[in-house]
Amino acid sequence: MSRRIRRTPYTDRVEQAGVRGFSVVNHMLLPKAYRRTVEEDYWHLREHVQIWDVSCQRQVQISGPDAAELMQLMTPRDIRKARIGDCFYLPIIDANAGLINDPVMLKLADDRFWLSIADSDVLLYAMGLALGRGMDVDVREPDVSPLAIQGPKAEDLVAELFGVHIRDIGFFKYGWIEFQGTRQLIARSGYSRQGGFEIYLEGGHLGTALWDAVWEAGQPYNLTPGCPNVIERIEGGLFSYGNEMTRENNPLEIGLGRYCVLDGSIDYLGRAALQKIAAEGVTRKMRGLVFDGPPCPICSKPWPVMVGDQQVGQITSGTWSPRLERNIGLSLIDRGSWDVGQVVTVHMQNGAVADGQLSALPIP
Amino acid sequence: MSRRIRRTPYTDRVEQAGVRGFSVVNHMLLPKAYRRTVEEDYWHLREHVQIWDVSCQRQVQISGPDAAELMQLMTPRDIRKARIGDCFYLPIIDANAGLINDPVMLKLADDRFWLSIADSDVLLYAMGLALGRGMDVDVREPDVSPLAIQGPKAEDLVAELFGVHIRDIGFFKYGWIEFQGTRQLIARSGYSRQGGFEIYLEGGHLGTALWDAVWEAGQPYNLTPGCPNVIERIEGGLFSYGNEMTRENNPLEIGLGRYCVLDGSIDYLGRAALQKIAAEGVTRKMRGLVFDGPPCPICSKPWPVMVGDQQVGQITSGTWSPRLERNIGLSLIDRGSWDVGQVVTVHMQNGAVADGQLSALPIP
Repeated sequence: MSRRIRRTPYTDRVEQAGVRGFSVVNHMLLPKAYRRTVEEDYWHLREHVQIWDVSCQRQVQISGPDAAELMQLMTPRDIRKARIGDCFYLPIIDANAGLINDPVMLKLADDRFWLSIADSDVLLYAMGLALGRGMDVDVREPDVSPLAIQGPKAEDLVAELFGVHIRDIGFFKYGWIEFQGTRQLIARSGYSRQGGFEIYLEGGHLGTALWDAVWEAGQPYNLTPGCPNVIERIEGGLFSYGNEMTRENNPLEIGLGRYCVLDGSIDYLGRAALQKIAAEGVTRKMRGLVFDGPPCPICSKPWPVMVGDQQVGQITSGTWSPRLERNIGLSLIDRGSWDVGQVVTVHMQNGAVADGQLSALPIP
Repeated sequence: MSRRIRRTPYTDRVEQAGVRGFSVVNHMLLPKAYRRTVEEDYWHLREHVQIWDVSCQRQVQISGPDAAELMQLMTPRDIRKARIGDCFYLPIIDANAGLINDPVMLKLADDRFWLSIADSDVLLYAMGLALGRGMDVDVREPDVSPLAIQGPKAEDLVAELFGVHIRDIGFFKYGWIEFQGTRQLIARSGYSRQGGFEIYLEGGHLGTALWDAVWEAGQPYNLTPGCPNVIERIEGGLFSYGNEMTRENNPLEIGLGRYCVLDGSIDYLGRAALQKIAAEGVTRKMRGLVFDGPPCPICSKPWPVMVGDQQVGQITSGTWSPRLERNIGLSLIDRGSWDVGQVVTVHMQNGAVADGQLSALPIP
């Protein structure tokens, strides 16, 4: 990989730990696999604790007198409700209510926010809006590289390493730890359903030291290097920007309605479009899907979901679940066919066709 | 790869042709290597003709009454000078004159432009600006997937396939061809110094047919599948956004001064910052660099360039040149040390240190 695909403060250690491949998110390396199979990692993540280099969750820092106004302009979620110490998951939408990103917003001060972003250049969108409106804000990417510690043993490990006060941090809240004389932000969050923390390391030069500290303290907890696990995230109904949602999708059909204020009490771009969609009712919804057959291939383009001869939707992520011993997927299904329990067929990209059934999310 | 890393209309054929790896540009697959080595591809590209899937050069279409105004806002190049049929290479800069992208602009009509972009979400920047200023424009990514035909035999091949009128298309101009009843844009351009064309295929469903047509007609010309060649591009002094330039760089230091109007005759964002840089004089410049030793590793982070104990710059792309039988690189060098012929040392990421010398660009 060339410099264009940016290394992270942890990449040297990730390589030493035996990484076998990377993906690219936000022009940055995301480890995709280590020595063990995805299935082995899945079971390990559910029982122990893992260290994940998620530096690719870049921060877009918005600060200055107009910071809160710019933040609100980009999202239908009411950010006035966020307090310092809160992590707010929220949709960012365009004028047609199409999804631009689904970041986590960290409110650092009344006039300073971080957006921990999925895979699109939110920085350029925010900068364009601010320049276009002549707002008094500073938009930048700070030197912040999240390191995730995920799994049921994460809390014990983090408490031992950084102090028991971290046990008091609530879900999607953040607090602070000290590391080598610096104050670092730590949130109870992460891209799994197994619990854990994300350290928003400020200062890339500390990356190797932080990795090593977690690594060493983690040995008694059976810590291994890991990465977002496709089986765990599909079972858990965790969506991925670019997979389950693109600018072709609005937040209501993706199930993000609880983050959308539709009563006109706040102003944001795309409000009229979103209100119209809400008034007319969404035409499709996200569903789990459990289907037959041998382990399915990787879903690198949407797979048609059919009822008889009629396409009623698509799968955008699919995998074999070793727990259910069935294939599972995340699917967007048309009104009229979206009831849980609906019998469907799945047409995979390798030509295979399998019978399946819609399920709730998370997939039980 | 998941759906998030988008396949292209040609990916099926690229896989059949034996692709051995991909890179990711604009959330899309870019073939990185086929069966032959980079060196073999280099020699072939200089003598014959290759077919490249460069769909990742996504188009940002800007159209509507305010399209020209929005275009001009984003770039210091005077776009009033572009005529329909012109391809304009141009820098897009932010308020600090930092480079956001270096696309090719195709003027399709007075009120309709395509930006054929490098690796950043220009669409989000343009959309943000337009929304922020309340401009009457439509900003979208059309279904356009460039296919490049590069190498000295490209013109003969394209003329045979689509008509001799393509011989009249000038460098960085575009014309039209007919393909299966559709009119398609073809430009004399491409990311090599060996000449060639890019077909901006509109309609992804035609991708396989277009690939097959070029492939078949290309056999007498010794056509092979290929991709941008790192040796050829470094020798040729072709820069890559994300490698040689980022938002930390301004267009003047990258050598793009001829695309920057500084006399105040046009308005664009970042003009004041750019004029200030011009008035003070740039502090560093792009140079070629030829250096000793065995074939260097891949440059995945900037390598310090030293004069004695003093760092005077950095290499951002480096490779072994089989033609020169030396290592070559693209470097950004500080004032005071930037003269061609300057003796330097290069400190590579594998710990190796080599003597070298600054050269002109392209590297002779």
